[in-house]
Amino acid sequence: MVKKYKKISSSILVIGNEILSGRTKDQNVSYLASWLNTNLGIKINEVRIIPDDEKKIINNVLNLSKNYNYVFTTGGIGPTHDDITAKSISKAFKKKYTFNNEAYKILNEYYGKKEFDDSRKKMAKMPEGSKLIYNPSSAAPGFIIKNVICLPGVPLILQSMLHNLKKYLKRGSKIFSLTISTQTVESQIAKSLEKIQNKYKKFVEIGSYPFFRLGKIGVSIVLRSEKKIKLQSCHKEIIKILNKKKLRILKGT
Amino acid sequence: MVKKYKKISSSILVIGNEILSGRTKDQNVSYLASWLNTNLGIKINEVRIIPDDEKKIINNVLNLSKNYNYVFTTGGIGPTHDDITAKSISKAFKKKYTFNNEAYKILNEYYGKKEFDDSRKKMAKMPEGSKLIYNPSSAAPGFIIKNVICLPGVPLILQSMLHNLKKYLKRGSKIFSLTISTQTVESQIAKSLEKIQNKYKKFVEIGSYPFFRLGKIGVSIVLRSEKKIKLQSCHKEIIKILNKKKLRILKGT
Repeated sequence: MVKKYKKISSSILVIGNEILSGRTKDQNVSYLASWLNTNLGIKINEVRIIPDDEKKIINNVLNLSKNYNYVFTTGGIGPTHDDITAKSISKAFKKKYTFNNEAYKILNEYYGKKEFDDSRKKMAKMPEGSKLIYNPSSAAPGFIIKNVICLPGVPLILQSMLHNLKKYLKRGSKIFSLTISTQTVESQIAKSLEKIQNKYKKFVEIGSYPFFRLGKIGVSIVLRSEKKIKLQSCHKEIIKILNKKKLRILKGT
Repeated sequence: MVKKYKKISSSILVIGNEILSGRTKDQNVSYLASWLNTNLGIKINEVRIIPDDEKKIINNVLNLSKNYNYVFTTGGIGPTHDDITAKSISKAFKKKYTFNNEAYKILNEYYGKKEFDDSRKKMAKMPEGSKLIYNPSSAAPGFIIKNVICLPGVPLILQSMLHNLKKYLKRGSKIFSLTISTQTVESQIAKSLEKIQNKYKKFVEIGSYPFFRLGKIGVSIVLRSEKKIKLQSCHKEIIKILNKKKLRILKGT
């Protein structure tokens, strides 16, 4: 029986001036990418980082939502004036930007009537018809509208919500990966790798990444494929070549 | 005399499957963004992360190069099969992908005739008419063609080349920044901040970022402006409000 491989494409839209200014280092892209592949077989095909600007949010959401199965947005769903993601996405999809009853209830219970002020109430507003992604860390939920999934920017809060997001997403085929690290320089193995890449063109993606670790120079060869067997045979061929070239393969790779 | 403020816009195009898969965390965006603003007053308006895919490189380079003063690409200029940035950008601009004589000479001298093999020679190929960005760490130069600046993906190498890039770029007005960190939650200050943001709409961009540090919850209020005097008066007003609310302002902010 031939196993079918299902590709689910996606993109991440990072919304936040603080990332573009360099003040804050994004931590969500690599986390989300690994998590989505490992848990759901969803691949990130593109990432964009844009400012807190309504027009740019609208244009990018519409463009990415058309081109990929899913769009994950991060940032801009808090209580302050610069949190404009929910409102902008409502406009993008021509949905009413309004209170979600369930979100309102959750936040009201979490804060208590006295503490549930107008700024906090804002976090219950979103495009009409959104589904909620519950937030076990700080109550304010994320939401899904069409194929756009809106998550917060604070890494620990985002991470705590992913479990509750799972049920909404289709599963694709997981991409398996193997890494071989060797003490050499890229040019030493470039030709052989190119030959193997051509041979496995359809099945395995081979990446070559130089590294400098503990004063040593080396190359990490990363193989990625949806097909475990092809991945393993490609791995074997590369190991054989490295042995033939008498290159040391580093442990734990 | 009214000082003129010159805006230089730019974007970063990160090229690399390893960033999209989550295997490697990008370190260049925040470094480049801070460096460009501090040293040259150049602002990053947008970032895109795309795979090592010729079509995508071409489309994104053309699109970004049209929309911004500068495009900085990172990654894909090494000696292996997956390094396709130089070739793709040649195609994008309909330039011949060919040896740059000076780059060839630099690499030939660096490696010596014996070690300067075909894979390494590839690093001397680029769009015809490119200007070189010298590389003091590992010789292989970056290059500039039209308004596109091609840099390597390895952070330490990229960083070492920025000094040699300076002379090619126009200077804009530096954006000044002040941060106030206070022990509170965002909703506590959201309304006041919104009022001040509206007052300073034209001059100061105010961002509000919650943090969790050493078990403490707080908010960093980040003010950014090209106009130092407006920035300082906006800063004063916010401090006044925080004092009035009896919120503790954290030191070193």
